[in-house]
Amino acid sequence: MLTIYGVYRSRASRPVWLAYEIGLPFQHVPVIQAYRLSAPDAADAPLNTRSPAFLRVNPNGHIPTIDDDGLVLHESLAINLYLAKRYGGALGPASVAEDGQMGMWALWAATEVEPHSLQIQYHRMSYPPAERDPKVAEAAVAALRKPFAVLDQKLAGSGFLVGGRFTVADINVAEVVRYAIAAPELFKPTPALRGWLEACHARPAYKRMMTEREREPA
Amino acid sequence: MLTIYGVYRSRASRPVWLAYEIGLPFQHVPVIQAYRLSAPDAADAPLNTRSPAFLRVNPNGHIPTIDDDGLVLHESLAINLYLAKRYGGALGPASVAEDGQMGMWALWAATEVEPHSLQIQYHRMSYPPAERDPKVAEAAVAALRKPFAVLDQKLAGSGFLVGGRFTVADINVAEVVRYAIAAPELFKPTPALRGWLEACHARPAYKRMMTEREREPA
Repeated sequence: MLTIYGVYRSRASRPVWLAYEIGLPFQHVPVIQAYRLSAPDAADAPLNTRSPAFLRVNPNGHIPTIDDDGLVLHESLAINLYLAKRYGGALGPASVAEDGQMGMWALWAATEVEPHSLQIQYHRMSYPPAERDPKVAEAAVAALRKPFAVLDQKLAGSGFLVGGRFTVADINVAEVVRYAIAAPELFKPTPALRGWLEACHARPAYKRMMTEREREPA
Repeated sequence: MLTIYGVYRSRASRPVWLAYEIGLPFQHVPVIQAYRLSAPDAADAPLNTRSPAFLRVNPNGHIPTIDDDGLVLHESLAINLYLAKRYGGALGPASVAEDGQMGMWALWAATEVEPHSLQIQYHRMSYPPAERDPKVAEAAVAALRKPFAVLDQKLAGSGFLVGGRFTVADINVAEVVRYAIAAPELFKPTPALRGWLEACHARPAYKRMMTEREREPA
């Protein structure tokens, strides 16, 4: 049995979306980020990323984490590569070469895109208006011009990242790119990227994940 | 035939170390970082990360990049996961579970460790003394306390990250941890991590890579 630890309003959205794509059942343990609680260490605090019970599962204290029949994994993009390979059929790699490409896109997204797309999300959406710094957001937009151009060029080919079909690579990269949606100026010069993201977000499994997410307390 | 693009004094050290571990022959194309050249765009500039000829191989303009019989991959840690799987025998995964763990450690190193270990390298070693900011280095040390404790706890078990043997996971994480060696205060409270890193650096393949590196113009 697969267990996914982590509230839907976290990077747990990534394995949840993938599980819905596969039709893979899972138990959901809604561990919440400690920083969202005023008293995470209180005896009656909800299970959170600083709770001893969760730190015994993942000593990093980060979500998502999975337990798949005793195999514990953290790092959302790696979790998805694993689940796709074990259970995902055509969502996973059909060869060692495709496997290499899927790993490459995951590491590319985590290092070339996410540090910047997160700043856009923070400084244009999630932070209270008084705490937003437009200059930080603008620097992040500038940093993403080149990676987004690379992605647009890649997607202008087959419309997908690996193997000419929708795979875990698209899920992983789309989830990291999503943090940048408050920067429409990044998507105007990248029509292939924009169309691909819209198609990803039109998938029933993505919509189901977002419905669960929005049902969860903010 | 495998081609590795990137000078040894770059993250190309990672696939080079792995190739030496495997005994895998490769052609080396010493593409240099453009920021290290005063005139990277000049007609007679050495092949660098802004050269059109290299951008046709990897439009991100980053090293290392490999071409393995036509399969082009970038992202050093993903390159290593691919090479270990295809050519590395016991250095690669023996099961889908091990494969998942190796992917997890690569993404963990890239996101939890490298942004901070790089700052230690910059501000205690590579930048000219006048450009170093001790506060940046100290903040990076503080940020690494927790991940290094997690790593130490993990290594205190079998002495290796995955499968109780030396694998690509050890190479990938050791190469990212290496950037922090100018912070000895991080290694004093982590004896298992310290011993593991020393053992990694005592390996003949690592020493051979470092010899090539030091032979290269600074």
